[in-house]
Amino acid sequence: MEEDKVSKSLEALARVEDEVEKAERETEFLRLKKLSAVYLNRKEAIAGIPGFWKVVLSQHSDFANYVRAADLKYIDCISAIEVTWLCVEDEKADHRDFTVTINFDAIDGDFESQTVSKTFRIEHDVSKFIYRSKRTEEDDLRDEELGFLTSTPTEIKWPKSFDGINPSLVTDKTTSEGKRNYRTGMKSFFSWFKWTGLKPGKEFPNGDGLASLISEDLYPNCTKYYTEAQIDLEEENVDEDDESDEPLQLESSDGEPEDCDGKQKSVKRRKV
Amino acid sequence: MEEDKVSKSLEALARVEDEVEKAERETEFLRLKKLSAVYLNRKEAIAGIPGFWKVVLSQHSDFANYVRAADLKYIDCISAIEVTWLCVEDEKADHRDFTVTINFDAIDGDFESQTVSKTFRIEHDVSKFIYRSKRTEEDDLRDEELGFLTSTPTEIKWPKSFDGINPSLVTDKTTSEGKRNYRTGMKSFFSWFKWTGLKPGKEFPNGDGLASLISEDLYPNCTKYYTEAQIDLEEENVDEDDESDEPLQLESSDGEPEDCDGKQKSVKRRKV
Repeated sequence: MEEDKVSKSLEALARVEDEVEKAERETEFLRLKKLSAVYLNRKEAIAGIPGFWKVVLSQHSDFANYVRAADLKYIDCISAIEVTWLCVEDEKADHRDFTVTINFDAIDGDFESQTVSKTFRIEHDVSKFIYRSKRTEEDDLRDEELGFLTSTPTEIKWPKSFDGINPSLVTDKTTSEGKRNYRTGMKSFFSWFKWTGLKPGKEFPNGDGLASLISEDLYPNCTKYYTEAQIDLEEENVDEDDESDEPLQLESSDGEPEDCDGKQKSVKRRKV
Repeated sequence: MEEDKVSKSLEALARVEDEVEKAERETEFLRLKKLSAVYLNRKEAIAGIPGFWKVVLSQHSDFANYVRAADLKYIDCISAIEVTWLCVEDEKADHRDFTVTINFDAIDGDFESQTVSKTFRIEHDVSKFIYRSKRTEEDDLRDEELGFLTSTPTEIKWPKSFDGINPSLVTDKTTSEGKRNYRTGMKSFFSWFKWTGLKPGKEFPNGDGLASLISEDLYPNCTKYYTEAQIDLEEENVDEDDESDEPLQLESSDGEPEDCDGKQKSVKRRKV
């Protein structure tokens, strides 16, 4: 009798956990819906601040871990980043599904201006993995329960200067040089756009980490990173006795004077 | 002209951050409202599971860091924990304000059964600190901006066995023994109920840490901890070839056979 009661209570407790999950899911949906509206206003404000995303991407200490030093020149060409959550338009979508859209400015003769979108979706079916050699049974159990991030490959135009490592142009994969070039190209930020999440060890490394970094941190907190960068600049210049309104030269990430579309790379010292 | 536009955009960006904060605050309020309703159902389910909170409190690895080993006997007397968020009843309250209510069972001749509630509120006025010797300027700046947790002292009946260290009974604070007893008592879980948050170094240490641990982790995730404990028990017994329904003796935290109200301290092996 007592045991029966305990048994029933444990079943009730399991049902309550489902209710908790539902409440969290509904709240997250409302949160993303509210934030998406606010982010539209933010997009408009950011459009009036030259070099905003360049400052944000330089300020974020983790972002640089996902890109090669040679990529930074093209990262500096990023003029806009936008994240949209699929559930805002389609209530049936997992609230963790999202699309990242990135605008690149051109570099004359080397790199075309373009807008590239890549969609990431949560998957639970571990049989979809194409390469399994690096996966353990624990990986499968965890991914089946919590889900894992996947994405379909997206086209992006690589810079001409990367022709030697562009994986779709490296035809000779038998020589050690060919292999090295191919592997170098796979680690480029440009290969992230081909990332599927289903070929661990055979594609851009930790592509889900970069996607989550953008959707969970860099995009929601971009104003914080921009403000931090401006404060850092102010502190660096506090001894200079120069309180005039002259534009401050931002450090170029690769020391090269070249810049996308020849736009100024200076940002005024200012607190947001 | 260009500068004027940037200036306006930065102002717009600052306004957007206020909108983001508002959206987050509104969502958190809705979340707590939804969850509070679900937690009422959970409370009912938990009431039918003997020893639920004892199992949860033993399973949570951090909780033990906040209590002395000698307290554990009385921690085992906790028959119910409830957290309620003030904003659910009063929309003007900070969504981080909450009340913890704890029910204790009695131990004959030593400890009275009682229900004790303690309310925690976010404060921003750092001039309220009574002892400031341990605080830095950075502490003040951070606490003014983000707020800090405070609480009014609440009465709790201490066990008789703690008379020697009960701070309100230790009258002799001049001898080294008196001082030692007083300090030992201040570190007891029972002194947490007197914690104000305004006397750093002079009251229960890290009282806000314990409050947050209960409100942000232990209470929301209690079912997870209970389930983990049951799985651990199953794994410990997997070799025993004993799949019968016999009750499993839970390890007593202090090795004493004594138990609150003489209730059984066994919990059935069961998955939630």
